Amino acid sequence: MDMDKIVSLCKRRGLIFQSSEIYGGINGFWDFGPLGVELKKKLKESWWRHIVQMRHDVVGLDTSIIAHPQTWVASGHLANFTDPMVDCKKCKGRFREDQIDTDRCPEKPSKSPRECGGELTAPRQFNLMFKTYVGAVQDDSAVAYLRPETCQSIFTQFKNVSITSRKKIPFGIAQIGKSFRNEITPRNFIFRSREFEQMELEFFVKASDSPTWHAYWIQNQLDWFCGIGVGKEKLRIRPHRADELAHYAKACSDIEYEFPFGWSELEGIADRSDFDLTQHTKVSGKDLSYFDDETKQKFTPAVVEVSVGVDRTLLTLLCDAYHEELAPTAEAGESESRVVMRFHPSIAPITVAFLPLAKKIGAPLALVEQEFRKSLNTDFDEVGSIGKRYRRHDEIGTPFCVTYDFQSEQDQKVTVRHRDSMQQERVALDQLKPYLQKQLGNL
Amino acid sequence: MDMDKIVSLCKRRGLIFQSSEIYGGINGFWDFGPLGVELKKKLKESWWRHIVQMRHDVVGLDTSIIAHPQTWVASGHLANFTDPMVDCKKCKGRFREDQIDTDRCPEKPSKSPRECGGELTAPRQFNLMFKTYVGAVQDDSAVAYLRPETCQSIFTQFKNVSITSRKKIPFGIAQIGKSFRNEITPRNFIFRSREFEQMELEFFVKASDSPTWHAYWIQNQLDWFCGIGVGKEKLRIRPHRADELAHYAKACSDIEYEFPFGWSELEGIADRSDFDLTQHTKVSGKDLSYFDDETKQKFTPAVVEVSVGVDRTLLTLLCDAYHEELAPTAEAGESESRVVMRFHPSIAPITVAFLPLAKKIGAPLALVEQEFRKSLNTDFDEVGSIGKRYRRHDEIGTPFCVTYDFQSEQDQKVTVRHRDSMQQERVALDQLKPYLQKQLGNL
Repeated sequence: MDMDKIVSLCKRRGLIFQSSEIYGGINGFWDFGPLGVELKKKLKESWWRHIVQMRHDVVGLDTSIIAHPQTWVASGHLANFTDPMVDCKKCKGRFREDQIDTDRCPEKPSKSPRECGGELTAPRQFNLMFKTYVGAVQDDSAVAYLRPETCQSIFTQFKNVSITSRKKIPFGIAQIGKSFRNEITPRNFIFRSREFEQMELEFFVKASDSPTWHAYWIQNQLDWFCGIGVGKEKLRIRPHRADELAHYAKACSDIEYEFPFGWSELEGIADRSDFDLTQHTKVSGKDLSYFDDETKQKFTPAVVEVSVGVDRTLLTLLCDAYHEELAPTAEAGESESRVVMRFHPSIAPITVAFLPLAKKIGAPLALVEQEFRKSLNTDFDEVGSIGKRYRRHDEIGTPFCVTYDFQSEQDQKVTVRHRDSMQQERVALDQLKPYLQKQLGNL
Repeated sequence: MDMDKIVSLCKRRGLIFQSSEIYGGINGFWDFGPLGVELKKKLKESWWRHIVQMRHDVVGLDTSIIAHPQTWVASGHLANFTDPMVDCKKCKGRFREDQIDTDRCPEKPSKSPRECGGELTAPRQFNLMFKTYVGAVQDDSAVAYLRPETCQSIFTQFKNVSITSRKKIPFGIAQIGKSFRNEITPRNFIFRSREFEQMELEFFVKASDSPTWHAYWIQNQLDWFCGIGVGKEKLRIRPHRADELAHYAKACSDIEYEFPFGWSELEGIADRSDFDLTQHTKVSGKDLSYFDDETKQKFTPAVVEVSVGVDRTLLTLLCDAYHEELAPTAEAGESESRVVMRFHPSIAPITVAFLPLAKKIGAPLALVEQEFRKSLNTDFDEVGSIGKRYRRHDEIGTPFCVTYDFQSEQDQKVTVRHRDSMQQERVALDQLKPYLQKQLGNL
């Protein structure tokens, strides 16, 4: 399976479009269409339910994308969140130093920037944060940045949140939100883009407990991925080598997925020690320590970070769901190729499609659909042959299609067609709700 | 009721904090705490359900905050989204021309910029869009803007969405997302901030139908506000005068709410004619017309825009819910003041709080709470006197508190306490779910 097929399906079915396509697009930015929004909403809901709603020891937060610039002094991003870049004095192109042999010269695309003959500058550090100015005057005091990660404001609000929520350590603060990185070479569809969404949990613990919690969250997240339908055999844990670790990190493990372009990071789970709270304490001069009621001691908690991209998880779900197979046609003995997205029913953009065989007999089914619509994402589709409608719903991963035909008018039964097996069952219309509830489990 | 009380409650109870408070804050940016996130989530869910999920004629979209800069050429924002600003040559302060008499001189706060003695420049246009650079090189070709409204990318993606969703006019495209405006004077708490969230619906119609749909959406939105608990008497419709209308708009009405600082715009509903699609067609050179299957005619649809701020609606809910009243204490005949947030149960951050009278008898209630938590936002709170816990939940607007006491151990009944009436009822533990379901209606 190659990536182009996924990209093409996403556009064709309204999952993901290139941002500003009518203006030629803008590199590294993507728009989510009608079905993409629903998939993304369900994914985020699933994470929030799993990490926040169902737990007593995690609360949510939703902070601004633009924060006080001192935030990035304390976090180290202003000084260190950089790529070394090399300029070509001839064509004025700018290239990442580590890609100078694989990149292409904009004027002579057959050659790399090193081969094209232009003189290259020494590498210079280029900060990946998007910069802007806040307020009426554009001077140094007005500089601000779009956050490159959501977690830093979890640290700066640690005191406010811990006091108002009255949570005791160990407890976590979770956030879903947009982040921005001025990547030099956005690539692999929505895997590496310049505007993306993160789901981050910062889980505050005693330093001595951090190895236990680090292991706990790795397993917890693996379970969550499997729970939303990601194939176990395509997931692996890759502990960072000592020489990969940031100087403050005690441990870090990536959960990797085998994308069409190879094994790549899906989620990072890091034991960040007390580095972040200590840094923000230093730079702000504000006390961010925690008072332990039991031991009567004050200390700066360590933190285990659980950080995953919404877009990367979405790409994982898309790649994992995509299947092409031969399926029998209406004519006995014949078969044709079908594309089917085997989304887990809990995250499929549409859960049940209602398909009257003909427009004129659709009214009773429309009433049923309106009732289901209150609690599920449904579609009511009366246009085209039933075979075409099934194929369309296979391509967008609708787990159940409910068909109302001329016989239904007589026996008040409908046909439920299962996406993956393509098996069909007759179910009494007034039993449809319990039937589907049973199929869907506790969604 | 004054605004300061709301601001103070929001901070005290973890609804809304100043962004980057430990660094002295950043003007015009706000963070939503653990309860604020839940309130906001429920508000957005309610809008989405009302506008997208329950309708066949509206689909969703979720586009990037940074779009191709030609977007803002076509929309007119690059040329016209400006405030006239005046500089003081002495103190270097910059002031909005229309506020020059009410603003304060930064060096002599007792005087206005006109009175302080500094020479003022002629007014100059200042664009309210935040500007940044995308890509490795910071030149004119790399300039990009943070979107000042979410609707423009609905227009630029009109063709992709209408084709993939196969919707026929009249139909709408809805989006919830962040927008940014470099307001010179952010004010009134979260009413006017620099980073905010919008919920926008662009409803595409035949030009001849637009007056009908304009009236329809005004009523529809009024009903929605009332449905989430906003008091009817504090809402009014204000049609724009002819001289207020943008040149392309055929009609515009604001739904206003009576905030503590006066009647102000909560939502705008505008008949924007075919201006937007026509502009993007002109600037992009791409055909954004619509083909009518029935009449076999191609035309550029008109659009009715339904645009409301998440933060403004949230502020409305906060102001509308806030009540201070005298309530009887435990001692007969005594009373004390209580603050109660009378949120509609469908949007209250916590729906049911479970309060064991003492820690040691809490286990059976904890089991019940864990079950409710699957479908509702709950709290399990066993610390402090029961009176204090009730007051806390009054302040955060929890509609129901369920208390388990020593008698509960004998009769397996709990006390359900109603927030607004403060009345208490004994309910059998195994009847709690149907009892609360009945109280909550179809949430």
